[in-house]
Amino acid sequence: MSPAESAQQAGISFIKAVLRGISQVILIENALTGLAALIGIFSASYGLGIVAALSSIIGTAVGRCCGAERKVVDQGLFGYNAVLTGIAIALFLDGPGKWIVAPAAAFLSAIFAASMMNWLGRIQLPVFTFPFIVLTWVILLAAYRMDFIALNPVLNPQNVSDIHQSLTDIPDILQGVVHGVGQVFIMDDFIAGLIILSGVFLAGIRPGISAVLGSAAAWLTAYLLGAESSWIDQGLYGYNAVLTMLALSWTFPSERGRRFSYLAGLAAAASSVPVTSGISVFLAPYGLPAFTMPFTLTAWISLSARQWFQKAGSS
Amino acid sequence: MSPAESAQQAGISFIKAVLRGISQVILIENALTGLAALIGIFSASYGLGIVAALSSIIGTAVGRCCGAERKVVDQGLFGYNAVLTGIAIALFLDGPGKWIVAPAAAFLSAIFAASMMNWLGRIQLPVFTFPFIVLTWVILLAAYRMDFIALNPVLNPQNVSDIHQSLTDIPDILQGVVHGVGQVFIMDDFIAGLIILSGVFLAGIRPGISAVLGSAAAWLTAYLLGAESSWIDQGLYGYNAVLTMLALSWTFPSERGRRFSYLAGLAAAASSVPVTSGISVFLAPYGLPAFTMPFTLTAWISLSARQWFQKAGSS
Amino acid sequence: MSPAESAQQAGISFIKAVLRGISQVILIENALTGLAALIGIFSASYGLGIVAALSSIIGTAVGRCCGAERKVVDQGLFGYNAVLTGIAIALFLDGPGKWIVAPAAAFLSAIFAASMMNWLGRIQLPVFTFPFIVLTWVILLAAYRMDFIALNPVLNPQNVSDIHQSLTDIPDILQGVVHGVGQVFIMDDFIAGLIILSGVFLAGIRPGISAVLGSAAAWLTAYLLGAESSWIDQGLYGYNAVLTMLALSWTFPSERGRRFSYLAGLAAAASSVPVTSGISVFLAPYGLPAFTMPFTLTAWISLSARQWFQKAGSS
Repeated sequence: MSPAESAQQAGISFIKAVLRGISQVILIENALTGLAALIGIFSASYGLGIVAALSSIIGTAVGRCCGAERKVVDQGLFGYNAVLTGIAIALFLDGPGKWIVAPAAAFLSAIFAASMMNWLGRIQLPVFTFPFIVLTWVILLAAYRMDFIALNPVLNPQNVSDIHQSLTDIPDILQGVVHGVGQVFIMDDFIAGLIILSGVFLAGIRPGISAVLGSAAAWLTAYLLGAESSWIDQGLYGYNAVLTMLALSWTFPSERGRRFSYLAGLAAAASSVPVTSGISVFLAPYGLPAFTMPFTLTAWISLSARQWFQKAGSS
Repeated sequence: MSPAESAQQAGISFIKAVLRGISQVILIENALTGLAALIGIFSASYGLGIVAALSSIIGTAVGRCCGAERKVVDQGLFGYNAVLTGIAIALFLDGPGKWIVAPAAAFLSAIFAASMMNWLGRIQLPVFTFPFIVLTWVILLAAYRMDFIALNPVLNPQNVSDIHQSLTDIPDILQGVVHGVGQVFIMDDFIAGLIILSGVFLAGIRPGISAVLGSAAAWLTAYLLGAESSWIDQGLYGYNAVLTMLALSWTFPSERGRRFSYLAGLAAAASSVPVTSGISVFLAPYGLPAFTMPFTLTAWISLSARQWFQKAGSS
Repeated sequence: MSPAESAQQAGISFIKAVLRGISQVILIENALTGLAALIGIFSASYGLGIVAALSSIIGTAVGRCCGAERKVVDQGLFGYNAVLTGIAIALFLDGPGKWIVAPAAAFLSAIFAASMMNWLGRIQLPVFTFPFIVLTWVILLAAYRMDFIALNPVLNPQNVSDIHQSLTDIPDILQGVVHGVGQVFIMDDFIAGLIILSGVFLAGIRPGISAVLGSAAAWLTAYLLGAESSWIDQGLYGYNAVLTMLALSWTFPSERGRRFSYLAGLAAAASSVPVTSGISVFLAPYGLPAFTMPFTLTAWISLSARQWFQKAGSS
């Protein structure tokens, strides 16, 4: 192989890792899915598309440069927290400063991810999106005391006793299910959601169906529990359920077989809905979005309980 | 043994596990204590008695069906978080929906308990009531965004700066000590407290004395530190101290002998009083009760410190 | 050796452990540094100096009496959480009760520290000041419900939406850098800061330079990010950076060599600045100071990420 060829190969391998870093946002290791998701983000906003691609590059580069295991980096596991952090910072901060803070935060999220892998690897649990969530919360709160960055005014702190529901409309199932998938990438655009969902189907029929089922389970649960219809329509109850379903039925399936994985996934996806409500109320006085914390907690608890029952069963 | 006899035996074994699930709420493994506590709860409210029994059945069934170690389930260790979750949901939610949410939450608390056993087993610490506390907090907060369930209006969010003490009355020691024991089961009924305390004595003189000493230590500490007398009278400073004292002196006694266990238990029980105040102030903006978090944290810290000193001593 | 001589030696060894307990507040194991810091505290306030010395005695005595490894106690690792807890309680509580609560809290912080050593030792992370921070927060919050203690009125709960910056003045670099070192001991006195900084130089040129660099990095970062100048002048952005820098470049240097340790330390120190803002906003509704939580979290994440990359590199 000539030096030029091997440089080209290295380039292709890096680009694949970057695209897988985008696909891992939705718990899938597939460069095509990542490409589709990136197109979906670009379709909604050029700025966010650039931030998403750049953040995945930064995260992947951190993994490569700091000496992480090559296989872990190539699976995209250093990219997804950076992607989400970059997008969230670009969406929820205002003013020009955010274009500097977004890549810096993407860098920090990759370091944070490495430290969490060190802790959670010991108990055989994935990091999920914990570093993204906590780092982004801290930066959004920091905006109150740092003039260089300003908060997007949609983030509106509110006393818990001032929370009121408006339950006038009936939610729309198609809107809700597609937006539930799009919101995994913090996109509230219907077309972006459709493109991202197509990307999931590119990885296989089964992850595609899991995503739809998770989103639909959340829609039904939220509707039955009397959640606000505007939230349901925007997919704000769906994305955590999509991720929980994919985690339990596709990314980390049970040893007990596919049917059990789907049932447990649906139960956990439905459970993530009241968890989403609860966490969003906890964050209300800070005006912070719940991000994917409901998924992260629900999936950790579900996977850890499964581990425990399996250990007990095999001993 | 005929099939009928073995079915009967299985039934008796299950009922014992369920009753021990109720007794484990107060850190005791004894079916009679569980029965007495159940009678105490029924004496205060039929609805709560039914919820308590049903929740212990659900928790125990989860342990059995999911393949937990039989011994752990039979000790009642799958029941107590479910019992407390069921009772707390029935007490602090309003409207008919709560009778559906209570058993569903009891189910989830048992799954959560399994996942915590998986984590904490590695560091030789018991789960205590952490799953109950966190799950119940999340569900109570979720009620602000889910129309199917409504909060009991006693839960009243309040800014920290609006907290004021009213220190007019002198607290009553008998009321306080007995209520402190009853509040372990979230009962504020004096007779229920007395019946539950009798149940503890059924398990032995020593746990009975530990419970009384823990409650009395909390009473004294709260009084000396100038806590609100209505809280002291209702046992709201006592129940965490009762549990802390029982954990350190009865359920997990020290290798250094009984006297040391009692002294450490009393010190930890007294410490749980300011922890109770602190946590209740932290939760004030959310209108959430502290539940048994002060006990869980105080007991974890005490047991872990003891482990560490013992390891150092034996090395 | 005569009994008198050995008693004298034991006394000297104990005093050295106590002074090292004070120096460990700033991550240095050096009795002279501890003595200088104690003089610095006395120069600002006799009361605080007595509390600091007494707290270190209490923490060290807990370690000795409870059977901790002698080496750990002699390094001062049982003293520093107690020292900080004592000072913070004496500063942020009001009324005569605080002189009883401060030593009691110092005692509890040493027990808490032992329990954290038990947990964090398993993942090769130092406890840092976590026990001090959490225990002091709980006690300060408890003051709202315990009449025996009163809060210093400087602690003023505030809704997040009421936070406003005043950016009129230009911060002073000398003030900021020296105060940043003094605030490690919660001292806002310039002379105290100078004496403490001299003490750090007594331990060596390198830790002294690290402390100055960390404080200066924070000053620059805070200034560039548009932090409030009064906070910068008082060193409120500096002390967490000083500690982060010392942890990464002096106390726990990298295997990759000194230059890498300094660079990583500076990056982490700069990162601790927005973390300080974020945590202080999170605590605003409770009126609590961030204390050294930004340092503890930043340093844990940095050290754990370094561990993970080193493991990956060596495998």
